[in-house]
Amino acid sequence: MTLTPSSAPARKSFGSDNHAGAHPAVLRALGDAKLGDTTAYGDDPWTARATAQLAGLFGASGVFLVFNGTAANVLGISLMLRPYEAVVCADGAHLNVDECGAAERIVGCKLLPVPAADGKLTPELVASRLGGRGDEHRAQPRAVAITQVTEVGTCYTLEELRRLGEFCRVNDLLVYMDGARLANAAAFLGCSLADLAASADVLSFGGTKNGAVGAEALIVMNASLAAAARFQRKQQMQLASKMRYLAAQFIALLEDQLWLRNAQHANAMARRLADGVGGAPGVRVQQPVESNGVFAALDPALIETLRREWSFSVWDARDHVVRWMAAFDTTEEDVDAFVAAIRAAAGALTG
Amino acid sequence: MTLTPSSAPARKSFGSDNHAGAHPAVLRALGDAKLGDTTAYGDDPWTARATAQLAGLFGASGVFLVFNGTAANVLGISLMLRPYEAVVCADGAHLNVDECGAAERIVGCKLLPVPAADGKLTPELVASRLGGRGDEHRAQPRAVAITQVTEVGTCYTLEELRRLGEFCRVNDLLVYMDGARLANAAAFLGCSLADLAASADVLSFGGTKNGAVGAEALIVMNASLAAAARFQRKQQMQLASKMRYLAAQFIALLEDQLWLRNAQHANAMARRLADGVGGAPGVRVQQPVESNGVFAALDPALIETLRREWSFSVWDARDHVVRWMAAFDTTEEDVDAFVAAIRAAAGALTG
Amino acid sequence: MTLTPSSAPARKSFGSDNHAGAHPAVLRALGDAKLGDTTAYGDDPWTARATAQLAGLFGASGVFLVFNGTAANVLGISLMLRPYEAVVCADGAHLNVDECGAAERIVGCKLLPVPAADGKLTPELVASRLGGRGDEHRAQPRAVAITQVTEVGTCYTLEELRRLGEFCRVNDLLVYMDGARLANAAAFLGCSLADLAASADVLSFGGTKNGAVGAEALIVMNASLAAAARFQRKQQMQLASKMRYLAAQFIALLEDQLWLRNAQHANAMARRLADGVGGAPGVRVQQPVESNGVFAALDPALIETLRREWSFSVWDARDHVVRWMAAFDTTEEDVDAFVAAIRAAAGALTG
Amino acid sequence: MTLTPSSAPARKSFGSDNHAGAHPAVLRALGDAKLGDTTAYGDDPWTARATAQLAGLFGASGVFLVFNGTAANVLGISLMLRPYEAVVCADGAHLNVDECGAAERIVGCKLLPVPAADGKLTPELVASRLGGRGDEHRAQPRAVAITQVTEVGTCYTLEELRRLGEFCRVNDLLVYMDGARLANAAAFLGCSLADLAASADVLSFGGTKNGAVGAEALIVMNASLAAAARFQRKQQMQLASKMRYLAAQFIALLEDQLWLRNAQHANAMARRLADGVGGAPGVRVQQPVESNGVFAALDPALIETLRREWSFSVWDARDHVVRWMAAFDTTEEDVDAFVAAIRAAAGALTG
Repeated sequence: MTLTPSSAPARKSFGSDNHAGAHPAVLRALGDAKLGDTTAYGDDPWTARATAQLAGLFGASGVFLVFNGTAANVLGISLMLRPYEAVVCADGAHLNVDECGAAERIVGCKLLPVPAADGKLTPELVASRLGGRGDEHRAQPRAVAITQVTEVGTCYTLEELRRLGEFCRVNDLLVYMDGARLANAAAFLGCSLADLAASADVLSFGGTKNGAVGAEALIVMNASLAAAARFQRKQQMQLASKMRYLAAQFIALLEDQLWLRNAQHANAMARRLADGVGGAPGVRVQQPVESNGVFAALDPALIETLRREWSFSVWDARDHVVRWMAAFDTTEEDVDAFVAAIRAAAGALTG
Repeated sequence: MTLTPSSAPARKSFGSDNHAGAHPAVLRALGDAKLGDTTAYGDDPWTARATAQLAGLFGASGVFLVFNGTAANVLGISLMLRPYEAVVCADGAHLNVDECGAAERIVGCKLLPVPAADGKLTPELVASRLGGRGDEHRAQPRAVAITQVTEVGTCYTLEELRRLGEFCRVNDLLVYMDGARLANAAAFLGCSLADLAASADVLSFGGTKNGAVGAEALIVMNASLAAAARFQRKQQMQLASKMRYLAAQFIALLEDQLWLRNAQHANAMARRLADGVGGAPGVRVQQPVESNGVFAALDPALIETLRREWSFSVWDARDHVVRWMAAFDTTEEDVDAFVAAIRAAAGALTG
Repeated sequence: MTLTPSSAPARKSFGSDNHAGAHPAVLRALGDAKLGDTTAYGDDPWTARATAQLAGLFGASGVFLVFNGTAANVLGISLMLRPYEAVVCADGAHLNVDECGAAERIVGCKLLPVPAADGKLTPELVASRLGGRGDEHRAQPRAVAITQVTEVGTCYTLEELRRLGEFCRVNDLLVYMDGARLANAAAFLGCSLADLAASADVLSFGGTKNGAVGAEALIVMNASLAAAARFQRKQQMQLASKMRYLAAQFIALLEDQLWLRNAQHANAMARRLADGVGGAPGVRVQQPVESNGVFAALDPALIETLRREWSFSVWDARDHVVRWMAAFDTTEEDVDAFVAAIRAAAGALTG
Repeated sequence: MTLTPSSAPARKSFGSDNHAGAHPAVLRALGDAKLGDTTAYGDDPWTARATAQLAGLFGASGVFLVFNGTAANVLGISLMLRPYEAVVCADGAHLNVDECGAAERIVGCKLLPVPAADGKLTPELVASRLGGRGDEHRAQPRAVAITQVTEVGTCYTLEELRRLGEFCRVNDLLVYMDGARLANAAAFLGCSLADLAASADVLSFGGTKNGAVGAEALIVMNASLAAAARFQRKQQMQLASKMRYLAAQFIALLEDQLWLRNAQHANAMARRLADGVGGAPGVRVQQPVESNGVFAALDPALIETLRREWSFSVWDARDHVVRWMAAFDTTEEDVDAFVAAIRAAAGALTG
């Protein structure tokens, strides 16, 4: 049964990297994993292989597959905190704004958000939320959660990560890294996954936006935090019975570095898009393009015109900032058609 | 990449219905769902179709796809309770013993377990846990959670469901039904899904054990409980971004009643197995065989011998009760080979 | 046994209104409540009297005595929220900064803080946090928590309360009012407790800072929220077995409006203090003095000098803002001596 | 203002040891603690003295005053558990049946209750709930909660405590002891508080039922659990601002071992009551009288007759078991009058 997605835009969506389907290699891997019985709940050869490969790439103490990015974030911070401890994060962090209060309800922790226009925390910003340590009236800061790639498409440099990690170590803070788009950061920075993870105690590695059907890996670097993870994964409703199907997705993404090629391609498409609209009237790119997203302030009329035919998000309605996302399957033709549409609409605006 | 599952038993597993892989039709449906972009988080035509079909079959107010059975149970009861309310359940309920305390931690509720040898609650058993209503020192019973098929393979008859539902209605109790194997109950009872759901306020409909890769549906019958569900699903980390891939699995299972045929077949294989071992020395079937599982007390030496070559669970180590599960892909040959092995080992024991 | 509090400052503390002991009338009431047996957990004549009096004064649907202010706040908001709902509050709210994350852990809710220099929310400030309603990725704003008197000593006028309440009603938001110092607001505004409560769904009325040993009342105005309160009070560990001793404290405070006289006096002492330091070099009163607290920016050297002999808090270390609190038992002589010390130190500074 | 408690029974209540008022020495101590200012939140000389004395008596690592017994229990177990860990307890434990689900909601843990007719756990009973350790589907047993005096008036002997403690140590289980009536156990066993605490990691020491207005102490023996306690006490809404008034109550109870004399007296009154009704027709004492309570099965008609004039609880309606509690202020005359009434009613029954 093939369903024609009638509600889907006829044109390539720039709305989100999860508007794309799954990569054909991932789907093939699901098919391949169907043969024969295997033990449930991760005691199977696919899971053994995927987690061993991931552990090797990251230099990790433990790898735990989960269903989605919110789950990885919640499970990750739940490993770090006692009941009265808090997490410093950027105010725009997915953890803070896009998870329906899961951290507060499921972990029961307070988040201590800091404004960060470029999505990145610095030692100075973290320090601004460390008041009241030792005072029992205050939730005690214990972890710092960062996102790499950030929610606004920027990347921490390795030096920024190192400096932040060092600050946290000195200040008895653990580091969680939301890596829903970690592949895109590795692609942009030209570094290894282990390089990215070096300053983190726990991090996630996202498969879904990279071409999976739906699979994320929680990577535990700090060995003291690993033992509790499998219990908390189960309790947090993230233990797949037929785990082989999560594992198979990662096996496909890891083979011949498909994950990296997918990320490099998506990043290149975002770069092409940003370059293509350069100088167009009424279009001002807002953030450095360091991944697969372009954030741009547009003339409001331009937004209205473009959305009639193209799918993308208005990121900040007040300041008319839009988000354009490229995916592993965005083509040069898709980008060029979108650029042409933007330039045409922008020209009409000023004409 | 095809991995040979070396750790998997060469022989068909009777260990669990989730030792099986996914049904080919389900895997094909995943492949079919790959084409083109679509909106994330369930605003897509596959989800619209699957949830509409399910709502129709059940006569439901709302249908919410989630990743696994524990999640369906937790989300389901979380819709029913205020913070001080409790759930009456059988002491062997999955919710009580196999979810790592998720109900207590994620929902924050007390469970009030009742011993039930055949896994089934009755009005009388529920009534035994209703003491202290109105007394602020006691968690207040508000919901009754039952499992259909139960954890020991038995089924509530429609009359038992009706009677229990009526008792609950009169006593201001909501009914949650864990339907991880609801298809098997429908197959055994020869009734519709709507018949099974008639006395429930919320129930789950399991896809995973029926042949899915991993997908369950939460079915909300009571309209007053539906509005909160999508928020709580997200908060409970169960909102799939590429929801089409959960939906596609149900679309495949619903097409031409594949779900029912799978369940009928698995039930028949369990029946064949129970019949086959009838009269074998040292083998005593313990529960009525009303679904795809056979529970039998074995001579301990028999357990030891059989487990060298066959995969199955020891359900109750003290009383030497084992659980043999059939799946949608268990064949008559699989069963017959297992029966022959059991009878041979039993014969050797007494010989 | 009388203990000389050797660590206590020889001079009157301006550190907090809870540095004071209890009012003699309150202590007498405890003694009077000792005679004879009575039923526990609030089914006693003292509790009946105190709660009836409070219900009358506020026009309330229910009154629930608890042990402290944090408990009143947590219980109050817990009555209002479903699991995915959030509370808009001022960023300096006690609920947000001084309760060790109790709202997040005990209620499990997200707080949505708004910067508010004078401690007061406005419809405009609340509106700034209402984005994402209906979007399942966002915790859903459902309640607005305000503090009257605010944490910086200011009072909402009745008109401000009315306007905020109207905004909330129109926007389907419930109002919680932290009234740890509600008596001081009534004294400053010259209005009744019912006037203050008119726009609130639930509020607290603080006894402790007003002269009690330790007792707060949760006042439920919105009848639909009252039924759950006694269960949640118990679950939140706030049900006193010998409740008569909480009730007796309120009976004493309510008799001949002792609560109001205590508050009027404390307010007058703060006013006298603010007036007394007017024009002193290096002293700049920061907030309108509308209750029993004075917030002043001081020359840093002045802070250092004064703290050698006087007890008060540094409210904001960065901006050198101090908080001076008067209590029901602060005398004119106490204030005058403190004023003299401040003026002397300030003079020495400039001299 | 002295209120005549009209609803209180004219006769001494045998309903609960918290039907009594506070001991005069406790009330005097509250009055004495009123003089002068002192720092809030426990940084005061009364608290220093009370906690030092308690730490000395128990040999404790930390002492934390809280408002009531439920709070002590919840705080105590919250110090011991990671999110996926569970507590083994007797099925009749206060923690399990009389705290409105606080353990489940506030701590988020699962309780694993074991039937225990005399209220006492044994190593064998605990062992029966240790299945599934290491299995991520099961909440992991980590603590054992016992009550001393138990809910049915019995006492663990020191040898029973030692044996249970040893079992727990060997099995990597922590021990929590609910000591709401610990004084009565010390009085019955003729041992020190340190003796009682020797096998516990954390325990509570109840003041309220011993003559306090309302005060309990959480005693942390295991040094590794102490650091988190003050934060979790605050978060759990148990930090008194005017802490001196909790401390003063303990100072009064500790002076000249008033706590012990109160307990000895109450125990003696229960003994006198049990002896007095010995052999009365229709009265069968059910549990060894090892503290200040008498549990007796009565002829149902006797219950009805007696409750017309006397206050006591029906503990088990099905088996017609009543609970008669003596308090520190129960007199011999009170007991004798009650005995006479019981014997008269019993005689009339058989006459």
